[in-house]
Amino acid sequence: MEYPFSVIAVDVGGTKIACAAVRYESAGEPPVVEGKRSVATCAQEGGEAVLERIVGIVADVRASLADQAHLVGIGVGTAGRVDARDGSIAYANEIMPGWTGRPVAERLKAAFGLPVAVLGDVQSHALGEARWGAARGAQTCIVMAPGTGLGGGIIAGGRILRGAHGFAGEIGATPNTLHAGDGNLESVAAGSGIEARYEAATGTHLGGAEISARAYEGDPAAREAIENAGRALGIALAGWANMLDPEMAVVSGSVVKAGPIWRDALHAAYVEHAPGVLAELPVLDASLGDAAPLVGAAENLLDSLEG
Amino acid sequence: MEYPFSVIAVDVGGTKIACAAVRYESAGEPPVVEGKRSVATCAQEGGEAVLERIVGIVADVRASLADQAHLVGIGVGTAGRVDARDGSIAYANEIMPGWTGRPVAERLKAAFGLPVAVLGDVQSHALGEARWGAARGAQTCIVMAPGTGLGGGIIAGGRILRGAHGFAGEIGATPNTLHAGDGNLESVAAGSGIEARYEAATGTHLGGAEISARAYEGDPAAREAIENAGRALGIALAGWANMLDPEMAVVSGSVVKAGPIWRDALHAAYVEHAPGVLAELPVLDASLGDAAPLVGAAENLLDSLEG
Repeated sequence: MEYPFSVIAVDVGGTKIACAAVRYESAGEPPVVEGKRSVATCAQEGGEAVLERIVGIVADVRASLADQAHLVGIGVGTAGRVDARDGSIAYANEIMPGWTGRPVAERLKAAFGLPVAVLGDVQSHALGEARWGAARGAQTCIVMAPGTGLGGGIIAGGRILRGAHGFAGEIGATPNTLHAGDGNLESVAAGSGIEARYEAATGTHLGGAEISARAYEGDPAAREAIENAGRALGIALAGWANMLDPEMAVVSGSVVKAGPIWRDALHAAYVEHAPGVLAELPVLDASLGDAAPLVGAAENLLDSLEG
Repeated sequence: MEYPFSVIAVDVGGTKIACAAVRYESAGEPPVVEGKRSVATCAQEGGEAVLERIVGIVADVRASLADQAHLVGIGVGTAGRVDARDGSIAYANEIMPGWTGRPVAERLKAAFGLPVAVLGDVQSHALGEARWGAARGAQTCIVMAPGTGLGGGIIAGGRILRGAHGFAGEIGATPNTLHAGDGNLESVAAGSGIEARYEAATGTHLGGAEISARAYEGDPAAREAIENAGRALGIALAGWANMLDPEMAVVSGSVVKAGPIWRDALHAAYVEHAPGVLAELPVLDASLGDAAPLVGAAENLLDSLEG
C-alpha cells in the first residue's frame, strides 16, 4: 500500500452508527481518525433501514474527504455475530431486530465499488487496541469488554482471531467458573449481571454506576456484586492465559469504571488461579476510547487486502 | 524449499526419546517418517544426560539418511514448557529432573550446524494433526490430550499458537468448571484425576484401564469417575469453542480409550453448554498416532524457516 491512503470505517452499535475516515500518512505513524460523524441506529426500524443508514453515512464521509483518490476500502465493525466468509450478519439479538442475515459487505461493495471487510464490534475494538492502542504491537493478546454484556476479542499472530464462522472471542458465553452450573460468565461479570445480582440480594433494581457508588459508600451487597464480577473475570482470565499465554490483557467497557474494588478482585482471583509463570500478566486499560473500533475496522480492511 | 527434503524430528518424553527423518517428496504429498528409532530417556540421570542422548540419537538418524544433501534442519517436540524465544526448557516437572533450563536448540545447533526449532510435545502433536492428520488443513483447531496429565495445543491461522513465552495450550491448568473451586481441569479430566476420584470414592487405587473396564461391567463409582472426566472436558470445550470458534476439536491420549461412556458424557456436556451455532463442532480422534509429534516437530522447523 502506498502512503498516504484512507479507509472509511463504520462502527455499528445498537444505539448509534459512527463513521469516519481513518487516514494513514506514513509507515509506523498512527492513523488519524478524520471527519467523524454519527447517526442514531434506530434499530427498531429493522435491518434493512439500518443498512440504508450505513450506506448514507458512508456516502457522507466519502463526500467530505479532501483526498478521494487514495481511498482503499471500507471497514465495518458491527454488533452481532459476523459471518467471516461473506461479511453478512450470522446472528444478532433482539437489540437489532432484523439485523440477522443482512448482507453488509455485499451491499456496501455494490453501493461504492470498493473493497469491504466486516468484523464484530468487539473484535474491531480489540484489533484497534492491538495495532495502535494499549496493546500496540502485541502478537498474542486478549481484550475483555465488560459493559452491558461481556464481549471479547483475541489477537493471535498479530491478527484478530475469527475462527471457523467468525464468532471467536465470545468470552461472555464461557461457563461461569465462580458459581459452577449457574449461568455463563456474562451473567456475573457484565454490568447486567452486577445489576441482577444486586437486585437478587436486595430487592432493589439499580444501574451499574449507582451500585458502584454505593459499593464505595460501604453497601455490602453492592460491594459483593462488583467483587463477584471482578473475581469471576479473574478466574476466567487465568484459564484463558493458560490457553493463550498472551503478552497482556486489555480491559474496556463500563464495568471498568467500577474502579479498584473491581480491579483488585479481578487481580487477586487471577493471581490465585494462574500458574506462577503467568502471574505477571499485565492487565491494561484500553487507550483509544471510541476510536478503537473505527481503527480496528480499518485495520481489518487492510488485513483483508493483504490476504 | 525445493523438494525433496528431510527434517530430523525428535520426540522427547519422560520415558523415551524417539527420532526419525521426516521426508517431504513433493508439494501436497504427506511426509513420510523414515528410519525411526528410540531410546529410553533415563530422565533420572538428569537434564544434561538427556541432552547428550538426544544429540546421540540425532547423529544416528542423520548417519542413516540415504540423502544427506537435502536435510534442512532439526525439529524437536519435548516434555516441559519450552521457551519460544530461545528453544530452551523454561520449566519441567519432577518427571524430568534437571530438564528445566537445558538449552536444547542451542546445543543441537552447535552439534550439527543446522537450523533447529523446539516446541512442546503436545504442541508438536497438535501441529502434526493439523497439518497432515485428523485436522488436516485446519486454520483454527483445538487438540486435547487427556492422558496421565491433560495437555493441549491450539492452531490459529493455520499455525501452532505459542503465545508470549511459548506456554499456550496448557488446558489442564484451566479452572475446574464442573466442581468450582476444586482443583483444575486436569484433576478431574486426566487419567490421574480419574484414578484419584475413583480411589476417593472406593478406597481402592486402580489404573485407568481397569477403571474403564469396571465402568463397562457396571461399577457405578468407575462409571462416575469416567463420566465426570468427560463432562468436565465437555464443559471446558464449550468455553474454548466460544473463545476460538474452531473448525474442529481433536482428542488424543489414553483417556480416549475409555470409549463411549467418556465420549457420550463429553458430547452431552458440550452440547448443553455450547451455543446452538457451535453445537455441531466435530470432535475427532487423532489419526497419526505416534507419528504426530514427529511430523509436528518437523512442520514447526519448516515454519521457523519461513519466519
